[in-house]
Amino acid sequence: MILIGERINGMFKDIREAILNKDPEPVRYWAKRQYENCAAYLDINTGPTVDPKDQPAVMEWLVKVAQETVPLPCCIDSTNPEAIEAGLAVHKGKAMINSTSADQWKMDIYFPMAKKYNAAIIGLAMNEKGVPKSAADRVALAMEIVVNADAHGIPMEDLYIDPLMLPCNVAQDHGPEVLEAIRQIKTLAAPPPRTTLGLSNSSQRCTNRHLINRTFLIMCMAAGLDSAIADLEDQELLDAVAAANILLNKDIYCDSFLKTFRQR
Amino acid sequence: MILIGERINGMFKDIREAILNKDPEPVRYWAKRQYENCAAYLDINTGPTVDPKDQPAVMEWLVKVAQETVPLPCCIDSTNPEAIEAGLAVHKGKAMINSTSADQWKMDIYFPMAKKYNAAIIGLAMNEKGVPKSAADRVALAMEIVVNADAHGIPMEDLYIDPLMLPCNVAQDHGPEVLEAIRQIKTLAAPPPRTTLGLSNSSQRCTNRHLINRTFLIMCMAAGLDSAIADLEDQELLDAVAAANILLNKDIYCDSFLKTFRQR
Repeated sequence: MILIGERINGMFKDIREAILNKDPEPVRYWAKRQYENCAAYLDINTGPTVDPKDQPAVMEWLVKVAQETVPLPCCIDSTNPEAIEAGLAVHKGKAMINSTSADQWKMDIYFPMAKKYNAAIIGLAMNEKGVPKSAADRVALAMEIVVNADAHGIPMEDLYIDPLMLPCNVAQDHGPEVLEAIRQIKTLAAPPPRTTLGLSNSSQRCTNRHLINRTFLIMCMAAGLDSAIADLEDQELLDAVAAANILLNKDIYCDSFLKTFRQR
Repeated sequence: MILIGERINGMFKDIREAILNKDPEPVRYWAKRQYENCAAYLDINTGPTVDPKDQPAVMEWLVKVAQETVPLPCCIDSTNPEAIEAGLAVHKGKAMINSTSADQWKMDIYFPMAKKYNAAIIGLAMNEKGVPKSAADRVALAMEIVVNADAHGIPMEDLYIDPLMLPCNVAQDHGPEVLEAIRQIKTLAAPPPRTTLGLSNSSQRCTNRHLINRTFLIMCMAAGLDSAIADLEDQELLDAVAAANILLNKDIYCDSFLKTFRQR
């Protein structure tokens, strides 16, 4: 399970203020915290309040501060292609682009960018019509993404398809569809594309959010999920991932498996 | 998720002593506790220390005490066919037999018994050679059970196949096989047979047993598991089942879903 820490995002007040004040400390704090909490990538998002023309410079600064603090790659997260490219240009190691959708014009921008910078890339199983409900419609969009990625020479191990879970209190019937979509997406190519999920979205405005998050993540892991963007402060989520790794025979059981998981 | 409470079992000291002393109180206590903790059935097992010739009378007594205490059916659990039949004979409502294996001589005893008493029955995906490793071999044994049950006129909704999870610290490679077996068993007939699992076995002699139990149960539910024999004192297990029911769209989301789950 490739965990992507969600916390360096301008939608959080401390990061928003850090950006406003050019104060690197909150960014450093969350880079370290998430590194300690098993992040394999740091998601980096300027948030919605930064003026689009300033987003490239802010992204560049956030990526630099994060990578000066911990030895982790970033998941460069924006709806602004210029901000994404600015982040990629200063990134050390193999970055991840977050994200393209199945819209042709977006794929025509982001897949060449992923190729140019040798970056991994997240493809959202949606298009201008929104997020489909059925597993079959999600998988059809995933297939469009797979075909376009392949045409641009992106290896399947660098493509992370997100089947997109909506909050379970408003779109409850999507849960089983997302699980089935994950299973089917893993059959679309050989080797298969990878899968990821914006986990916190599944419990947006729900009660018992942490319980819902970790329960859904375990289900998705059993269906073949490779990665998730998540709140890594949630220690019970990390315990659940460690246990799921044991039960799916991906990590070797030892009596201290919770501690061992955190040490990697 | 049909929860079967595992606690009225002579392998536990208080039940063993209750049997020895003919003291109904511990049996009543656990009948009530498990009823409050969402049990749909009470598993009733005399345990290994009762002399085989006494097992029928002890089973009869346990079933009577349990059913005088709470309005629940019993899952009558023994390796002794006479003890099973003694329990069935005094049982009120629809009982469950725990269990037959795929051995022909056992199926030839237990399926006619299930038919005679209109009982549900658990079929273990094993035979005299033991528990197979691969999903395919588990499913092959499940198919033998399905065919024999059908030949005896047992409806598929009364047949609960247990794919048998072994402790994950000694048979870790069985986890993914059990999950795949659950998925495939649900395709063996239309309507499909039901599935169940002796959950506590998956964490026998492991550290963090409750974490392993609830993590594996959630995975199995996502694969289609219908029922589990479990430790219902484990409140986090009940929370996990409630959340999984929401996410699998089996219960309707409400903000008090944990409380609502316990009220049923």
